[in-house]
Amino acid sequence: MRIGVIGAGAWGTTLASLVAARTETRLWARELEVVESVRDDHENRPFLHGFRLPDELTVTNELDEALDDVDVVVVAVPSQHLRATITAARPLVPRRATIVSVAKGIELGTGRRMSQVLSEVLVDHRPDSIGVLSGPTLAREIMGGQPAATCIAFPDLARATVVQSLFMGDAFRVYTSDDVVGCEIGGAAKNVIAIAAGVADGLGYGMNTKAALITRGLAELTRLGVALGGRPLTFLGLAGNGDLIATCSSPYSRNRRVGEELARGRSLDDIARATQTVAEGIKTAPALLELAGTVGVDLPISTTVDAVLRGDVSPLEVVPLLMQRSPKAELQGLAV
Amino acid sequence: MRIGVIGAGAWGTTLASLVAARTETRLWARELEVVESVRDDHENRPFLHGFRLPDELTVTNELDEALDDVDVVVVAVPSQHLRATITAARPLVPRRATIVSVAKGIELGTGRRMSQVLSEVLVDHRPDSIGVLSGPTLAREIMGGQPAATCIAFPDLARATVVQSLFMGDAFRVYTSDDVVGCEIGGAAKNVIAIAAGVADGLGYGMNTKAALITRGLAELTRLGVALGGRPLTFLGLAGNGDLIATCSSPYSRNRRVGEELARGRSLDDIARATQTVAEGIKTAPALLELAGTVGVDLPISTTVDAVLRGDVSPLEVVPLLMQRSPKAELQGLAV
Repeated sequence: MRIGVIGAGAWGTTLASLVAARTETRLWARELEVVESVRDDHENRPFLHGFRLPDELTVTNELDEALDDVDVVVVAVPSQHLRATITAARPLVPRRATIVSVAKGIELGTGRRMSQVLSEVLVDHRPDSIGVLSGPTLAREIMGGQPAATCIAFPDLARATVVQSLFMGDAFRVYTSDDVVGCEIGGAAKNVIAIAAGVADGLGYGMNTKAALITRGLAELTRLGVALGGRPLTFLGLAGNGDLIATCSSPYSRNRRVGEELARGRSLDDIARATQTVAEGIKTAPALLELAGTVGVDLPISTTVDAVLRGDVSPLEVVPLLMQRSPKAELQGLAV
Repeated sequence: MRIGVIGAGAWGTTLASLVAARTETRLWARELEVVESVRDDHENRPFLHGFRLPDELTVTNELDEALDDVDVVVVAVPSQHLRATITAARPLVPRRATIVSVAKGIELGTGRRMSQVLSEVLVDHRPDSIGVLSGPTLAREIMGGQPAATCIAFPDLARATVVQSLFMGDAFRVYTSDDVVGCEIGGAAKNVIAIAAGVADGLGYGMNTKAALITRGLAELTRLGVALGGRPLTFLGLAGNGDLIATCSSPYSRNRRVGEELARGRSLDDIARATQTVAEGIKTAPALLELAGTVGVDLPISTTVDAVLRGDVSPLEVVPLLMQRSPKAELQGLAV
């Protein structure tokens, strides 16, 4: 098996490193400095500083080299760049290749999930060959050899099993699913909830508040996911709850940190300037609300986060706003 | 409305404090030193050191005084003492009173949930007047005025609404449910998972591992709860996931701390001697496995925790044991 990984951010690089020693793996990086750093020093200094990458990992700046005769393509670019990147790559993607999206976001303007963008662009591909890998997988912890578990979803469960066996290792456990929609909505929406969790952290709130935010956040992303065709129980799993918990709790979570900095009074521009990497939740918030509007689902936490990001609501008001809603039955609005 | 709270541990005292200013509230304490501390200094020094309790709160060591003409009885004693306490209280509990259990455990020997024990003892009571309050509610954070949300479940939703309105406040949000079984299994089983989470903390693992443990823990307690008649989506909520997250993450969680200390090489006896308060998970683990056996449900994490508590498995083996199981579909065994 030959694998091409498109995108050499922290997560693309980590996934490529997980399999490079076992099977031929080619990592495509947009940035020449990443190619040089990986090729010359076996390290991705810009995005994954401090970790030695496997010698077997091949890196390139050329899409045709990365995609030549591959069986599996892992797409690991920021969600708002995915369409452009995969459009450029399209003539080079082998027709029978299995495509795995690991980008977590919703496309602004179209409200499309990442696998939908891939289907639209890769018109010659069977839709059931396009799936997603999603779960609580903070790249630096996995590079450090810490145990983690994630979910691989394809409409065709047999493809999920192939990718499962490819990535499964002693410290990296992969579960299969056939709920692509559920996994993708979980992965995208959690980045927005994480900003709210970061705000709570920045204001000094403790674990009750955090747990309530995560739980109510899960309820809202489940409502949305179910309205879009996902299965409720997917949201109990690694790509829903698991990823949400890790992203809302880890000191390394970029989205959580954005919320924390906002709560401490920094502006969004300031925060963006200070960080190299993308906090997907910033762009996902408006895209998610657009998408929720099309199916008539109310997302109170995401709406509040979006208002904070726009500067319409002060971070100080986030928790009180969410606490003062009218009394409700817990699972109201969920299609049980 | 008059409320009697039976049990003056941290949580019973906190619940009594939440309502005492609004409605007549009587707190029953088994320990005379608690009665004296609350009565004389408006503080529960043994169990809730450092917080000023409301002047309106009445405390007593006499069950008849605590239960005289009350409309609502909150039962807040450790789960293995609940049957004895409520048996003693039985002749004194007004027949039409609403009973709220806030104890989180399973009775050893019988495998009964707390509301079942209450039904068995309070034979003159209508079963639909017995419910549970459960959610992510670390007592010290609530006493500190931090926002929290919890779930109140009764077979009769109208009773749930009455209790909801009684406890609902600016910083304490209460959601209703009619799934008593689901809420109780969530509340009991999370204490066992929290011991596993503590072990992971003690071994220095990060958020991916923690999130995976919580997520797989939630899957196993959902399987059990559903087999016993609970509804899957309850486990997505505050009494399931919310409480699990808080208990597995908070530095104040007693059960999590037990796991942490075990991982650092301390014996269970040592840990028990050093702490005043009860870590419910220690006794819940074997009771839970007994209960799971009756419905043929496999609980891999709880089984491992139980083996560690018995001294049959070293804490060092917990995470590898859980990671090395055979590849699976994520929701295998869940009645979807």
